Amino acid sequence: MKKILVLGTGGTIASVKTEEGFKSSLDINEILRHAGIKLHNGYEIHTKNILNIDSTLIQPEDWEIIAKEVYSGLRDYDGIVISHGTDTLAHASSMLSFMVQNPTKPVVITGAMKPITEPGSDAVKNLRDSLLFAMEAKIGGIFVVFNGKVMNGCRVSKINSVDVDAFKSINYPDIAYIDEGGQIKYNANILDSYSRPRGSLKLDTQYDPRVFVLKLIPGLDSRVIDGLLDMGYKGLILESYGTGGIPYRKRNLLEKIKSISREIPVVVTTQALYGGVDLSRYEVGMKALEAGVISAKDMTKEATVTKLMWALGHTEDVDEIKQIMHTNYADEIKNISQ
Amino acid sequence: MKKILVLGTGGTIASVKTEEGFKSSLDINEILRHAGIKLHNGYEIHTKNILNIDSTLIQPEDWEIIAKEVYSGLRDYDGIVISHGTDTLAHASSMLSFMVQNPTKPVVITGAMKPITEPGSDAVKNLRDSLLFAMEAKIGGIFVVFNGKVMNGCRVSKINSVDVDAFKSINYPDIAYIDEGGQIKYNANILDSYSRPRGSLKLDTQYDPRVFVLKLIPGLDSRVIDGLLDMGYKGLILESYGTGGIPYRKRNLLEKIKSISREIPVVVTTQALYGGVDLSRYEVGMKALEAGVISAKDMTKEATVTKLMWALGHTEDVDEIKQIMHTNYADEIKNISQ
Repeated sequence: MKKILVLGTGGTIASVKTEEGFKSSLDINEILRHAGIKLHNGYEIHTKNILNIDSTLIQPEDWEIIAKEVYSGLRDYDGIVISHGTDTLAHASSMLSFMVQNPTKPVVITGAMKPITEPGSDAVKNLRDSLLFAMEAKIGGIFVVFNGKVMNGCRVSKINSVDVDAFKSINYPDIAYIDEGGQIKYNANILDSYSRPRGSLKLDTQYDPRVFVLKLIPGLDSRVIDGLLDMGYKGLILESYGTGGIPYRKRNLLEKIKSISREIPVVVTTQALYGGVDLSRYEVGMKALEAGVISAKDMTKEATVTKLMWALGHTEDVDEIKQIMHTNYADEIKNISQ
Repeated sequence: MKKILVLGTGGTIASVKTEEGFKSSLDINEILRHAGIKLHNGYEIHTKNILNIDSTLIQPEDWEIIAKEVYSGLRDYDGIVISHGTDTLAHASSMLSFMVQNPTKPVVITGAMKPITEPGSDAVKNLRDSLLFAMEAKIGGIFVVFNGKVMNGCRVSKINSVDVDAFKSINYPDIAYIDEGGQIKYNANILDSYSRPRGSLKLDTQYDPRVFVLKLIPGLDSRVIDGLLDMGYKGLILESYGTGGIPYRKRNLLEKIKSISREIPVVVTTQALYGGVDLSRYEVGMKALEAGVISAKDMTKEATVTKLMWALGHTEDVDEIKQIMHTNYADEIKNISQ
């Protein structure tokens, strides 16, 4: 009989209305009970509560704990489902993709936009779809299952704060859909390239959380960079505009970046949700490349942040960081030259 | 005969391929010539080049110059078109909505994702649509015309770094579409509420650029707030997750925000593109409200940034800033209670 491990971490799905607003309260067994999911039903569900918090409160240390639970669970179970808050779900699924590499079984992260205790909650569908995929999937990996879609965990972003279709796969196709009848419909266009083996199962939880995301707005004062270095940040992500570029007019951020880019890695990502970074196209991008930045290419913001934390757990050498950032571990980055 | 003013500021639309990458080079007359647009053709087009730069390089001082040109142009012309780079177009159109209030004539900002000198450029369509709307529109306001859509200028975000459909109207409907035959199709659902008069034409270019956007990632060290205050920042925008909330577990950002929220305004926006902020729903949001933050509600990130800069040009009093941030100037914010 197939065995599935379901890990609880809290989030909206586990929330109950209190005088202080909705708050994570239900443990994973209570959630499954609310969803009408039986623990023995042609397969066996084992549960474990790791955390019970709103995912706004999740910290990098928690990812290490979740990754270790997943890795040890992969030995004993046929699939794993993680119930998680949606706010930092994309960060968690991205970091898991780096910390637990090449799983041959499905690891599914899911959650809900409405508490399971509320009428019309999406929790039941998301949990049922996730359990189904964890049991029946013909591929391994870290997945996000949400609103009937199966997405590559290192490719998702939360793009809507209220709608049940809150997650999108960014610069990458959905991997499968789960229809109303509980059938998994794979996206044939992606399955081949996705399922190509990249190596053997590996747990690697080394990371350094000292990463800062500097979001560009017109008028940004370049002195802020000095302050960040003084505070001991080890990696900087510059959230630039469009295909990526660094301002140098009136306030010279470019010059400042150039002066630190051998000291700490500076990764350029973009505020645009879709389309990614291409520093080879415009003058403002080419100058950024010359200043020594690392392109985030088509990675999501969440994958970029967690990958840089993870890379910094292995080395502080800027060239080595660049090589790690541009290595493809879980289809989080396209192998485009830049 | 109708008279239209076309202002040039540079951007991709004005770019020419150089050894250093695509670079703003063409002035507005050259752009119109490339687009095959005649300056006399049943109407009269006057042109003026204000800037010729990639919009990554645009600084807040430039918005003041553009706003003054627009305001003085509104006296002599029937409509205005501004040709602008796309990277900070949404910031410019948002700030213009606060600096030039209640225009009774159309002011259209447009640009292109591909240089007008390149084959298959979207520049010609965007320019023609913009001129058409500037001449024929039955409503006044600050608009963005892009890829056949007419959008409220204070509601747009650039969501794609490569596709020609690069802009979306966020938490607000498109105002009109321009079809292939050059017909303006208004969105009847929005026209009434949009065109309700809010006051008389007003130029108000006071602003303070000392605004910092702090993007939340798990593990953010709250000491960064002290550094920002030391640097003289006058306003803080916290780009939170989902409906908005501030972490307080392990690293207590909430406590730090509470300690400064009477000193400088702290505005909470969200990383989610759609859906906006609602601090009344979850415990992490209610705690943020109690800590004295100001909700950005359903405003775009670009409107939030420029509105806070503009508000700081008028007062540094936190309560007055809050009142300004929650005043609806150009349909940039819904009148929801929170």
